[in-house]
Amino acid sequence: LAASLAVPSVATANADVEKNIANSKNWAMQAGDMYNQRYSKLNQINKGNVGKLQVAWTFSTGVLRGHEGSPLVIDGMMYLHSPFPNKVFAIDLDTQKIKWKYEPKQDPAVIPQMCCDTVNRGLAYAEGKVILQQADSMLVALDAKSGKVVWSTKNGDPKLGAVNTNAPHVFKDKVITGISGGEWGVRGFIAAYNLSDGKLAWKGYSTGPDNEMLIDPDKTMTWTDGALKPVGKDSSLKTWKGDQWKIGGGTTWGWYSYDKALNLMYYGTGNPSTWNPAQRPGDNKWSMTIFARDVDTGVAKWVYQMTPFDEWDFDGINEMILADIPVKGKPTKALVHFDRNGFAYTMDRTNGALLVAEKYDPKVNWATHVDMKTGRPQVVAKYSTAQNGPDVNTKGICPAALGSKDQQPASFDPNTGLFYVPTNHVCMDYEPFKVEYTAGQPYVGATLSMFPAPGSHGGMGNYITWDAGNGKIVQSKPEKFSVWSGSLNTAGGLSCYGTLEGFFKCVDAKDITKELYKFRTPSGIIGNVFTYEHKGKQYMGVFSGIGGWAGIGMAAGLEKDTDGLGAVGGYKELNQYTDLGGSLTIFALPN
Amino acid sequence: LAASLAVPSVATANADVEKNIANSKNWAMQAGDMYNQRYSKLNQINKGNVGKLQVAWTFSTGVLRGHEGSPLVIDGMMYLHSPFPNKVFAIDLDTQKIKWKYEPKQDPAVIPQMCCDTVNRGLAYAEGKVILQQADSMLVALDAKSGKVVWSTKNGDPKLGAVNTNAPHVFKDKVITGISGGEWGVRGFIAAYNLSDGKLAWKGYSTGPDNEMLIDPDKTMTWTDGALKPVGKDSSLKTWKGDQWKIGGGTTWGWYSYDKALNLMYYGTGNPSTWNPAQRPGDNKWSMTIFARDVDTGVAKWVYQMTPFDEWDFDGINEMILADIPVKGKPTKALVHFDRNGFAYTMDRTNGALLVAEKYDPKVNWATHVDMKTGRPQVVAKYSTAQNGPDVNTKGICPAALGSKDQQPASFDPNTGLFYVPTNHVCMDYEPFKVEYTAGQPYVGATLSMFPAPGSHGGMGNYITWDAGNGKIVQSKPEKFSVWSGSLNTAGGLSCYGTLEGFFKCVDAKDITKELYKFRTPSGIIGNVFTYEHKGKQYMGVFSGIGGWAGIGMAAGLEKDTDGLGAVGGYKELNQYTDLGGSLTIFALPN
Ligand SMILES: O=C(O)c1cc(C(=O)O)c2c(n1)C(=O)C(=O)c1cc(C(=O)O)[nH]c1-2
Ligand SMILES: O=C(O)c1cc(C(=O)O)c2c(n1)C(=O)C(=O)c1cc(C(=O)O)[nH]c1-2
Repeated sequence: LAASLAVPSVATANADVEKNIANSKNWAMQAGDMYNQRYSKLNQINKGNVGKLQVAWTFSTGVLRGHEGSPLVIDGMMYLHSPFPNKVFAIDLDTQKIKWKYEPKQDPAVIPQMCCDTVNRGLAYAEGKVILQQADSMLVALDAKSGKVVWSTKNGDPKLGAVNTNAPHVFKDKVITGISGGEWGVRGFIAAYNLSDGKLAWKGYSTGPDNEMLIDPDKTMTWTDGALKPVGKDSSLKTWKGDQWKIGGGTTWGWYSYDKALNLMYYGTGNPSTWNPAQRPGDNKWSMTIFARDVDTGVAKWVYQMTPFDEWDFDGINEMILADIPVKGKPTKALVHFDRNGFAYTMDRTNGALLVAEKYDPKVNWATHVDMKTGRPQVVAKYSTAQNGPDVNTKGICPAALGSKDQQPASFDPNTGLFYVPTNHVCMDYEPFKVEYTAGQPYVGATLSMFPAPGSHGGMGNYITWDAGNGKIVQSKPEKFSVWSGSLNTAGGLSCYGTLEGFFKCVDAKDITKELYKFRTPSGIIGNVFTYEHKGKQYMGVFSGIGGWAGIGMAAGLEKDTDGLGAVGGYKELNQYTDLGGSLTIFALPN
Repeated sequence: LAASLAVPSVATANADVEKNIANSKNWAMQAGDMYNQRYSKLNQINKGNVGKLQVAWTFSTGVLRGHEGSPLVIDGMMYLHSPFPNKVFAIDLDTQKIKWKYEPKQDPAVIPQMCCDTVNRGLAYAEGKVILQQADSMLVALDAKSGKVVWSTKNGDPKLGAVNTNAPHVFKDKVITGISGGEWGVRGFIAAYNLSDGKLAWKGYSTGPDNEMLIDPDKTMTWTDGALKPVGKDSSLKTWKGDQWKIGGGTTWGWYSYDKALNLMYYGTGNPSTWNPAQRPGDNKWSMTIFARDVDTGVAKWVYQMTPFDEWDFDGINEMILADIPVKGKPTKALVHFDRNGFAYTMDRTNGALLVAEKYDPKVNWATHVDMKTGRPQVVAKYSTAQNGPDVNTKGICPAALGSKDQQPASFDPNTGLFYVPTNHVCMDYEPFKVEYTAGQPYVGATLSMFPAPGSHGGMGNYITWDAGNGKIVQSKPEKFSVWSGSLNTAGGLSCYGTLEGFFKCVDAKDITKELYKFRTPSGIIGNVFTYEHKGKQYMGVFSGIGGWAGIGMAAGLEKDTDGLGAVGGYKELNQYTDLGGSLTIFALPN
């Protein structure tokens, strides 16, 4: 009886959010929906006319550093966020006037605590509240009409490096948020706060004792030996030496998704700390892991670790895209994940079964393949920074630490059944070294340099289409730099993304090598493309504002090649193309 | 014989600059020419098709505060400047790549020494050199090909508040530059440096002994008693009490113009220091004055003081536009000047004769009229802050201290014979108080508040057309805020300007109430509209980036109404429209 009473709540993800999503005129969540698909049914702008696209209007946020995420649009209002200091603007789309602006006072001491630029990945909206996850870890609900604070709550301690960059996500009656600070030895967790009052509902750590992870040793399943088995007692503690798990990372700064029929939310955990593997022998569970959690209780239904014992900083936080697709011919409730480690995983999202794991960049060389029985990557000794040991520079590892893909979210197009993936095509040298933990100080322990994948087209990125049912690249479009922007597909037959040089591009979703439209926005793009309709007109838009890890040299004014954990050298040519500056560019067809 | 030998040099303004100006594809000087006309012969974009204008590309400078001036375009290269820290970019228009970038290291202590935002009004180009006047007073010549410093020279002492915002101007073989710091008691001057090596050629102060002003008591003429008369001995010293002239202002941060046939350059001097008139009885010559100087020697041919004994901060620096027009029916080599004090002056530029002086905003009330015999404004006692005395708040003075027009340059259209003037429609309360001079500290001595001109359309600006031959407003187009952007007229029948809300607008030059095109750029516009042609296509462009005096609240993060010398309160509604951010928006017709 109790179980059946629970059914109605299972059936609604959140009635208000669902209603907003169902109306394609809105852009109601960061990914447009709860599946992380980044697909819009709008088709006024389409293959035939996108070449005529024009800039409709623009808006500067007044903040210089990297602009990730995108605005939201709800019923004729646009809600924009900015990087630190995390301003929020409510813009009336009728008049384009700023209805209200919220600018928190945050201690600038937070800035140097952020590993990869002072980015923020955007707002959530539900039930008349705009939710902001500030850098200083304050989670704030604003009244959407007035911008006044309804509630606010502290999610972490920035003095210890626990800061935030992720977008909050509303699933059911909860606001879900994560934490950053893997490079400060922060112990990662995911937390659910009540949308109504901001009180903590549950919190599940990535590492440590079972109860703190909300892992049920008997019921939380994982893929092993070709089958799903319970993780067993102390599944995390057993894989760490001593207390290292307490400063062991596994942060959660990515995009989350939710399947209301299963009442499961999905997200990935980041790298184990430090970057010097010698200091943390073991699998370091559950860093680098896909988590499927019950949204009501937080209890983990299944987990899957992509990169046990990370030796390369291949954070597992990249988004889980939920799609119902044929996998090897069989209709599947799939979860598709393009991991930093260069493998794209297709799982059965209902239970965590591993279905496909293939390289989505042919240059990936640190592992030969993923053993489908054990689910473990087969590491190539030559590229093992652990086997080579500290103070040895392991050269030519592909991908680089920022992975074949980093935070830039991919899109799924139900019309083609393909995934559209903005990728990095970058390799690295990696030299780990011993590092002491000091609370609140960086805890990295490796020197890196990065460079374009050798023996390729010379560029640092590709925009690809991926067949997740078979684990195959369909097409690959070379780009000079990593594509650090999130893509969008639309019913107009388009796939659109931004480049680090600053170009907004739309390609033919059926043939992505065909560039149908290209426009140079004010600055490099690391934001995500979004679309909405207002007064009968479809608009597309994207933030520009160079930054993020790839643009950290410019964003933070760094100059040494190995600064920014190797990104400064790798992306130094960016300064021939663009400069800082955060603004929104909105496109539409001519009247 | 000596005189006739000098003739050839008189005939050329600077062969290279003239050649660049003659080619309408370039935008070779800040005003497009040496006459300050801001008129372009390009007509591809015209009245008929401007409605179809599109944004062609955009570029962020990576600097947030007010962006004045405009880029230059020379032979397919674009040279952009930014506010402090005064970056310079050379962009190849074929590839839009940044060919080189120059970023001086300037002491940030300069920032608070700048009265009205950290603006910079742009570059000069001549003979393969790009000339930058940095905020810290360094005048720098860069090699246009490489961006390397060819020479640099110090123009003032920023520790004493002598900083720079003006664009350098190349006339003949000289680089002309001025100085800011009227609110720091800086003694104003204009200086000419050799274009070839950066050595000082001459320097003419605004105040003090005749020889330091390069004034010839017998030959430098001024309009008095209905005729031109020599200024006589100690024309400045006699009008100051004691040594006050040494800290007496008269700075020179505006736009300069040059008539090569006369070999005269024209510019205006700023307010006398302090803003408390009680501390400086006398006419305070030659503050608030139009200077006509010989470019070779610097010697003043004529001077004319618009506002003797300033009591309102009506700096006389606004540009002198040279145009050959009928004045009261008679063909005239005219100089037209829209002064801060609200009067527009038409002079005979050959000799300094006063021909017309009329209000170009009907709300101007501090003076009834300019006496055409004496050339002096007839002050209304009620609005005299000196007669009312220190510590008395004189209310309702029109215009406000920022004048009926400030730095925003006007344009002249030879087709209509009219001047197109971006104006302020703002009044003020002004309360002077005693202030001690401390070297390097602000030396203001007045509290101000500003508000829209009462009993009018409620807005703070008008875009007007002006008949300078008769001293009459032809049309007036209301704007919500001051029009702080420089205008451009073109052979396409257009007059274009920007607004503080961020709109780029083009109106019909024959009927400026007809808005033909409007586009919302990322931020408020205080830059000047410019145009060029590249590969057969005409482009128009403008910097956006709110700031300057009108936008100082946002630019410097000030909040008290009387901060920013009263501008913060006056313009506080701006934050409902825009935020900071410097970028260039380039427009063109669709392909
Ligand atoms: O370990 C962490 O906590 C953490 C946090 C973040 C972040 O919050 O932005 C990044 C990373 N790691 C990271 O490894 C990484 O590649 C990265 C890229 C970016 C970005 O926004 O471009 N952030 C982060
Ligand atoms: O007295 C001076 O030296 C001085 C300098 C400047 C400047 O250099 O920008 C301005 C002013 N005064 C001034 O009075 C004024 O209205 C003003 C406006 C602006 C601007 O850029 O918006 N600058 C200045």
